[in-house]
Amino acid sequence: MTERLLPETLDFNRPFPALSRRLRLGVVGGGRISATQATAARMTDRWEVVAGALSSDPERAKARGAEWFMDPDRCYASFIEMAQVEATRPDGVDAVMITTPNNLHFPAAKAFLEAGIDVICDKPLTNEVDEATALIDLTAQTGRVFGVGYVMSCFPMIRQAREIVAEGRIGNINQIHVEFLQDWMTPDDAADAPHVKWRLDPKISGPTSCVGDIGTHAAHLASFVSGLGMTDLRAEFHVCGAPKPLEDTVFMFTRFQNDVPGTLMATRLAPGNRGGLRLRIYGSEGGLEWDLENAEQLKFYRFGEADRVISRGHGHGVSTVTERLVRTGRGFSEGFIEAWANLYTEFAMAVAARRDEVALPDDWLSFPKVAEGAAGVQFIAASVRSNEKGGEWVAI
Amino acid sequence: MTERLLPETLDFNRPFPALSRRLRLGVVGGGRISATQATAARMTDRWEVVAGALSSDPERAKARGAEWFMDPDRCYASFIEMAQVEATRPDGVDAVMITTPNNLHFPAAKAFLEAGIDVICDKPLTNEVDEATALIDLTAQTGRVFGVGYVMSCFPMIRQAREIVAEGRIGNINQIHVEFLQDWMTPDDAADAPHVKWRLDPKISGPTSCVGDIGTHAAHLASFVSGLGMTDLRAEFHVCGAPKPLEDTVFMFTRFQNDVPGTLMATRLAPGNRGGLRLRIYGSEGGLEWDLENAEQLKFYRFGEADRVISRGHGHGVSTVTERLVRTGRGFSEGFIEAWANLYTEFAMAVAARRDEVALPDDWLSFPKVAEGAAGVQFIAASVRSNEKGGEWVAI
Amino acid sequence: MTERLLPETLDFNRPFPALSRRLRLGVVGGGRISATQATAARMTDRWEVVAGALSSDPERAKARGAEWFMDPDRCYASFIEMAQVEATRPDGVDAVMITTPNNLHFPAAKAFLEAGIDVICDKPLTNEVDEATALIDLTAQTGRVFGVGYVMSCFPMIRQAREIVAEGRIGNINQIHVEFLQDWMTPDDAADAPHVKWRLDPKISGPTSCVGDIGTHAAHLASFVSGLGMTDLRAEFHVCGAPKPLEDTVFMFTRFQNDVPGTLMATRLAPGNRGGLRLRIYGSEGGLEWDLENAEQLKFYRFGEADRVISRGHGHGVSTVTERLVRTGRGFSEGFIEAWANLYTEFAMAVAARRDEVALPDDWLSFPKVAEGAAGVQFIAASVRSNEKGGEWVAI
Amino acid sequence: MTERLLPETLDFNRPFPALSRRLRLGVVGGGRISATQATAARMTDRWEVVAGALSSDPERAKARGAEWFMDPDRCYASFIEMAQVEATRPDGVDAVMITTPNNLHFPAAKAFLEAGIDVICDKPLTNEVDEATALIDLTAQTGRVFGVGYVMSCFPMIRQAREIVAEGRIGNINQIHVEFLQDWMTPDDAADAPHVKWRLDPKISGPTSCVGDIGTHAAHLASFVSGLGMTDLRAEFHVCGAPKPLEDTVFMFTRFQNDVPGTLMATRLAPGNRGGLRLRIYGSEGGLEWDLENAEQLKFYRFGEADRVISRGHGHGVSTVTERLVRTGRGFSEGFIEAWANLYTEFAMAVAARRDEVALPDDWLSFPKVAEGAAGVQFIAASVRSNEKGGEWVAI
Repeated sequence: MTERLLPETLDFNRPFPALSRRLRLGVVGGGRISATQATAARMTDRWEVVAGALSSDPERAKARGAEWFMDPDRCYASFIEMAQVEATRPDGVDAVMITTPNNLHFPAAKAFLEAGIDVICDKPLTNEVDEATALIDLTAQTGRVFGVGYVMSCFPMIRQAREIVAEGRIGNINQIHVEFLQDWMTPDDAADAPHVKWRLDPKISGPTSCVGDIGTHAAHLASFVSGLGMTDLRAEFHVCGAPKPLEDTVFMFTRFQNDVPGTLMATRLAPGNRGGLRLRIYGSEGGLEWDLENAEQLKFYRFGEADRVISRGHGHGVSTVTERLVRTGRGFSEGFIEAWANLYTEFAMAVAARRDEVALPDDWLSFPKVAEGAAGVQFIAASVRSNEKGGEWVAI
Repeated sequence: MTERLLPETLDFNRPFPALSRRLRLGVVGGGRISATQATAARMTDRWEVVAGALSSDPERAKARGAEWFMDPDRCYASFIEMAQVEATRPDGVDAVMITTPNNLHFPAAKAFLEAGIDVICDKPLTNEVDEATALIDLTAQTGRVFGVGYVMSCFPMIRQAREIVAEGRIGNINQIHVEFLQDWMTPDDAADAPHVKWRLDPKISGPTSCVGDIGTHAAHLASFVSGLGMTDLRAEFHVCGAPKPLEDTVFMFTRFQNDVPGTLMATRLAPGNRGGLRLRIYGSEGGLEWDLENAEQLKFYRFGEADRVISRGHGHGVSTVTERLVRTGRGFSEGFIEAWANLYTEFAMAVAARRDEVALPDDWLSFPKVAEGAAGVQFIAASVRSNEKGGEWVAI
Repeated sequence: MTERLLPETLDFNRPFPALSRRLRLGVVGGGRISATQATAARMTDRWEVVAGALSSDPERAKARGAEWFMDPDRCYASFIEMAQVEATRPDGVDAVMITTPNNLHFPAAKAFLEAGIDVICDKPLTNEVDEATALIDLTAQTGRVFGVGYVMSCFPMIRQAREIVAEGRIGNINQIHVEFLQDWMTPDDAADAPHVKWRLDPKISGPTSCVGDIGTHAAHLASFVSGLGMTDLRAEFHVCGAPKPLEDTVFMFTRFQNDVPGTLMATRLAPGNRGGLRLRIYGSEGGLEWDLENAEQLKFYRFGEADRVISRGHGHGVSTVTERLVRTGRGFSEGFIEAWANLYTEFAMAVAARRDEVALPDDWLSFPKVAEGAAGVQFIAASVRSNEKGGEWVAI
Repeated sequence: MTERLLPETLDFNRPFPALSRRLRLGVVGGGRISATQATAARMTDRWEVVAGALSSDPERAKARGAEWFMDPDRCYASFIEMAQVEATRPDGVDAVMITTPNNLHFPAAKAFLEAGIDVICDKPLTNEVDEATALIDLTAQTGRVFGVGYVMSCFPMIRQAREIVAEGRIGNINQIHVEFLQDWMTPDDAADAPHVKWRLDPKISGPTSCVGDIGTHAAHLASFVSGLGMTDLRAEFHVCGAPKPLEDTVFMFTRFQNDVPGTLMATRLAPGNRGGLRLRIYGSEGGLEWDLENAEQLKFYRFGEADRVISRGHGHGVSTVTERLVRTGRGFSEGFIEAWANLYTEFAMAVAARRDEVALPDDWLSFPKVAEGAAGVQFIAASVRSNEKGGEWVAI
């Protein structure tokens, strides 16, 4: 390959390097989250969005593509066709973002991997454990980069939290609590909205609704920051609001490696909560607390000392590793789109390194990968099994 | 009885009336919480602390009593003796506060009830369900007033929350979450302190440590505010820190009347948390959130409207009923001792009314009573049964 | 003197010692703040309230006294009479609390000092600088203890802040900002309430209303914590709401020793603010921020480090000196009345030491004294002079 | 003009419309703020950054441009040349962003206006009042669109605040307080950094440093939200930290239309503050408070009612007008870059409308314009005059 994307020499302790050109991104699925991710990708200036399968209706696919200033030739009505055509274009997409309803994640991801195109796929990775395993295998076989949309792990203060745990500054972890509370499904007719309906249809959403949509974010975050895999859980599903075919609320007890106990809760019927994703990890020497609704700050406690609050920015408790994901100064806020931009920045590094055939240190890029996606699918499946057994403990 | 304590005419919509004299309070148990309660009682200016059984060692009982400016004749080394003697003195105590270790609550309460003396007893009411039932019966037989130390229900903003629920302003409750997180037991040697040791000795503390000490506060608060009794639970006990004979952490799923689901959590090993008692109730139209560490404010959400915060004080969202428990203006903080003072104020009203043989409206005094104490004992017993069965659902 | 109040040996590094009896407190002035202070005094269990001049109308004086369970013989209609009679009773008051309208502070304080009785007087100490100077002289001549009601300096976290400054942990102070914002005077008719009216009558309130009532608290706090006297100011008075004879709002630039600049602001027309007393001190190495509406926490910054929050309680950043004013654990809140109780505790120590003829270390008791009261009167007078000159700089 | 950018029919009550192509943006000045603004512009997908004068050194200009993926032919070493060349290219820039040091704002803006290119210029607009006036005139003569970088006015909650004031929901404004506190200049050597040095050089920064950099943001925000122009001020400049040629701190009293009084404060030496831009407006019926460090929430008080908090997002107190600047749901945070993106979105609408020769309703686009920039220059000049006169009142 004559083109070189990364600089000849890389210093892994410095900010992420510039690439020699923008990478080309394709989009499969045209919903709201694809717009958010595309915004984030553009924001990095490491990606340009050039092709899409934004609708299965050819007319609509073209119309939506035009809103994104896509070449009409690259507005596909089928992701299969898109994979095939883009794979052969000299200016074909370097990677594809998959944000379809859940049931299409697997076939879409498979099609692009098989076409040799790197993938970033929304969570839950798939609706079936088998499919997730198949994607792990296919990723290994093809040697392609596979990112998964556990974007919460890309907030700088989450990275800082993980680093604090890894350095032993809260001692041995003794419990982990995580919850994700929202309120948008409170009105009885909330589930009737078109963009909501599929989330309650098992054929599309998979075996869960709330667990697979937001509970899995909570579970991922708990493991990501603690460094401990979740090994077992007991779960009870509830429909707290108007009747619906899938759960809108879930409560869990959880167990992590080293027999660390925890709890997990998710609901969409908690008025006053919107981005109520909260992580609390307690250890023998200290604790950490983080809340998505106050994502710029990390509470850090050392038993016996004054409470600490670390604010996203440069220095003042923020490490140089975390600073790589910092754009604006302390007090000049970043938000959710910037977290996505962090994911797309790290993903871009991985894509570039694959193309350049450059080996990277294992710990350089922490964006969520296919194995984490598959762990999420197993978590969801375990919650279903446990709930069916009346909330028995099940291994994940 | 010729003495009249209450005014001849009572207006139940106005502030609590003055009494014609201070009531006389005795103290059984000389630990830290008795000092807090005595401070609160004095603060009301409705009580004077005049007698005590502050130690089983006669010398020490007198020495401790002297610190409280008690008449040496009224410094008893035995609560049995105290009950007998005080019952016969013309200036005998009107009521007694029981703050002994848990295992003595029952014999002490029994002794005073049988001596015809009103009782305010710490939680857990007793270590055995039978004992709690016996105290309910004895209270009924003797016609005495029996208060229980679920003091959290006496914070004004908790009363305001209860009123908001009762008025239907959050709609039908769909879930209830409550937790009590502390951190003082984090160091490995924390349990060795003399005033802690008994809390981990099943002979004294009863079958639980964390559940009976703080979990029961959380459970009481959930029912007090929601107006819903807890009917079932599943519980798992954990020892998260250094090995100890009783649990230091508990996680529960709960069920309330109307099949309302919930969660409950308590631990003493959550660094950064001290008075981390948090209540969250969500309904079909809104929600309420309260945190002991920010006890002056009540978060109140109506779905679709701006968030509201009600601050303890006069007006601005605070009802006249709640204002009866307000001393200082908004922004001039009250705290934990004032919550105890509220309990002692209402208890004083009940004691005075009993003595005056005045019937009171059922909803006038909301301080926690013996039935709530017994419900707490049943909650604790149910948690033990569930935990022993591996976290099965059990009826309370 | 045969009676000894303090223990024979005193350890000044330990909690404040018990006294051999409760001290006897008289009350002059029967308004709301006297009830708050009496509650605080009782709460300490170092004082009993035994006599009062609660009204100039003899009938009303007795009725009010009865509510406080005072002996009718000790319910005076004149503070002059009270001073004379109490001074000669063997069980006469040890000290008197003066909470009359401002214009009576001076004659009342004078009467009690001359009768040999220790005084605790509300702020502003007097309406005239001459009177304040006279009280300093009289205090020196009589050797009596004179406390002043700058109660904000008795919050534990304010003491902690002062200690941090004194230890140099924020470096050299470079600016001091303080403000006291309330909202109760927002409605146009707020000033018509009987307990408010006198505050806007120059004959009673003195030359200012807002400055002398709340601005002076802010000024005292700034000096108390920084350790720097205020030397100069420029002030502008405003009537922001309905027309009234005295200012309801004031803005100032200030100058402290070492030429440290600052600002001061006070108003009663800031909707949403009630106890909005906020102190901010910045130095060459760090800063401190405190807010009365969140009085349990002190924000402490060291430049380059994570932010710190110190919570009232034991340890975790709270010094043993501060702990002397701590009753309940971290997270179990204390409030405004407890701050008053701290003032009454330290005042009790000073009164006991005077009676026992025991010399105390200068730094043992930090309650506000007559010199601070006089400094407050000079601050008020300077603000009036500056405002009259169109906001010129004036020396205090 | 054959090209049409806006849709044929415009509904001004709906979200901002799509344009038929991306607008082309040029960049003058290559510092950190240009990177932030370019990121924001890209994020809107309404702009592509295609040309720049990023350095006066031709080599460096090309190198910096390459990092932004600019055509080397469009990497200019002179903004004069850039204006001339771009004006004649068929694919020339539609608008230019000017983020040079302050002293070059005027010549750069003038060059582009004269070349017929729309301008968005950083604040302070110019260093001299004459220059600001000249730009107003030139904007009128050329009919070009001129935006100014008062980006704080583009936070959705600031727009919501403005709307609340305009609707009279806080009544008649009685006082306005605004402050901007930062801490980055705390270390003695902070001013030595290369990107800081020019900010303290009067030849480049103009007659002020702190006032022109951050004080002017505060002043703009006060007027923008209140709808009241600032008419008079008295200012004192301070150097609170290490000696430096211009002020690092300023305190002001201010006066607005209708004789509304206020205060303004700005400093870079307040440890613990970073984006401490705080606005407080109080009126006869309510108040508003906003803080850049918590920019997603607006505190809204109605006297006599519970406090309200409005969170950026859809509904729940957010108006449809404000929603036009909302990208992600409540709880999924947006930040500072999104505020810039809002400015660039509205600026794009104005540029498109000018090109399409479409008249827009006056109240449709609220981004800050040249007249606001000139008002800022007058504010700065007035502060200098006042400070020189020892803090006298001066008309702006």
